[in-house]
Amino acid sequence: MIKAKAHPFFDHLNQFITVSEKEFEIIHSYVSIKRLEKKQLLMEANGPCNHAYFVLKGCLHMYFITEKGTERTVQFALENWWITDFLAYQKHLKTDFFIQAVEPSEVLSIESESLEKILQEFPKLERYFRVIFQIGYGSSIMKMKYLYDFTKEEIHFHFTENFPEFAQRVPQYLIASFLGLTPEYVSEIRAKKRS
Amino acid sequence: MIKAKAHPFFDHLNQFITVSEKEFEIIHSYVSIKRLEKKQLLMEANGPCNHAYFVLKGCLHMYFITEKGTERTVQFALENWWITDFLAYQKHLKTDFFIQAVEPSEVLSIESESLEKILQEFPKLERYFRVIFQIGYGSSIMKMKYLYDFTKEEIHFHFTENFPEFAQRVPQYLIASFLGLTPEYVSEIRAKKRS
Repeated sequence: MIKAKAHPFFDHLNQFITVSEKEFEIIHSYVSIKRLEKKQLLMEANGPCNHAYFVLKGCLHMYFITEKGTERTVQFALENWWITDFLAYQKHLKTDFFIQAVEPSEVLSIESESLEKILQEFPKLERYFRVIFQIGYGSSIMKMKYLYDFTKEEIHFHFTENFPEFAQRVPQYLIASFLGLTPEYVSEIRAKKRS
Repeated sequence: MIKAKAHPFFDHLNQFITVSEKEFEIIHSYVSIKRLEKKQLLMEANGPCNHAYFVLKGCLHMYFITEKGTERTVQFALENWWITDFLAYQKHLKTDFFIQAVEPSEVLSIESESLEKILQEFPKLERYFRVIFQIGYGSSIMKMKYLYDFTKEEIHFHFTENFPEFAQRVPQYLIASFLGLTPEYVSEIRAKKRS
């Protein structure tokens, strides 16, 4: 039997709504746990996108491969973050993205039909996901503003100031990919900051 | 008394959940209607963001002013679309954005506290907004992919192919601003297509 107490997903749910330990046990019976090695893939482009992932431990990123063959990261997820291609997940489409573990990780995985069942059984979880998606949507519009408005140096500075945990945990080349910079440029900025 | 039948918001709600005419009357008592002239502002940067807008008629856009003083559009909304700075709206922060009517428009406006009351009274609306935000979030990640991956010409082609209504209704300089192109570049592409 899963222990609700101190479970990251139980705690996260209860940040936004009220879920009892008993209810959590039922909710948890719909999910599965996956352990991933560093660089292991969870989802692949041109395949189905039937699962959403909640990070229990570690760090993942979602990326696509450009026409020129380079990887471009569009999203990161650390502990307590949800990650998937939510458009494909919602509309049962093929995805254009890969999801990969940046570190050894552990995720909770919910299949889209299971999520629908959970939402039918516990409609209050609609509120939880409404808030999660509202913040995700709002933040991605904010990110567009930064990408449009800031110089490359400002983007990097803003990111490392606001998300210091990322800057420490995530390899430079992935941060560069996420911010639309070259790895060489990020090294240069870092060297400049140190000097 | 508001007539639910054939009301765009009533119809839109019922695309995702089931709302009776009686319930709609109560929901509608929490909202207000605003009529806007072309170019009229609904929200201004550095001010509060207490309202979300559902477009009944017309077209709006959300933009910010770059450090260089140019307007950059981050979002459009035609009929049946929601628009606001959802991060500021959720977190009761000041906004960095302006919302302006592109055409003479009519919107339904919900204050954030009123929305909270509606959601308390009709929790099933959480589902409606969950789906709206999930699609919005997913789409904005998709937009990032296009911005990263496509050439300028491809971005413009993709946009006008997939959203022909926009291309017809929205002035060229706003589409250019949304796609990160110069108005001159858009004119050039259009001229090329015609020839």
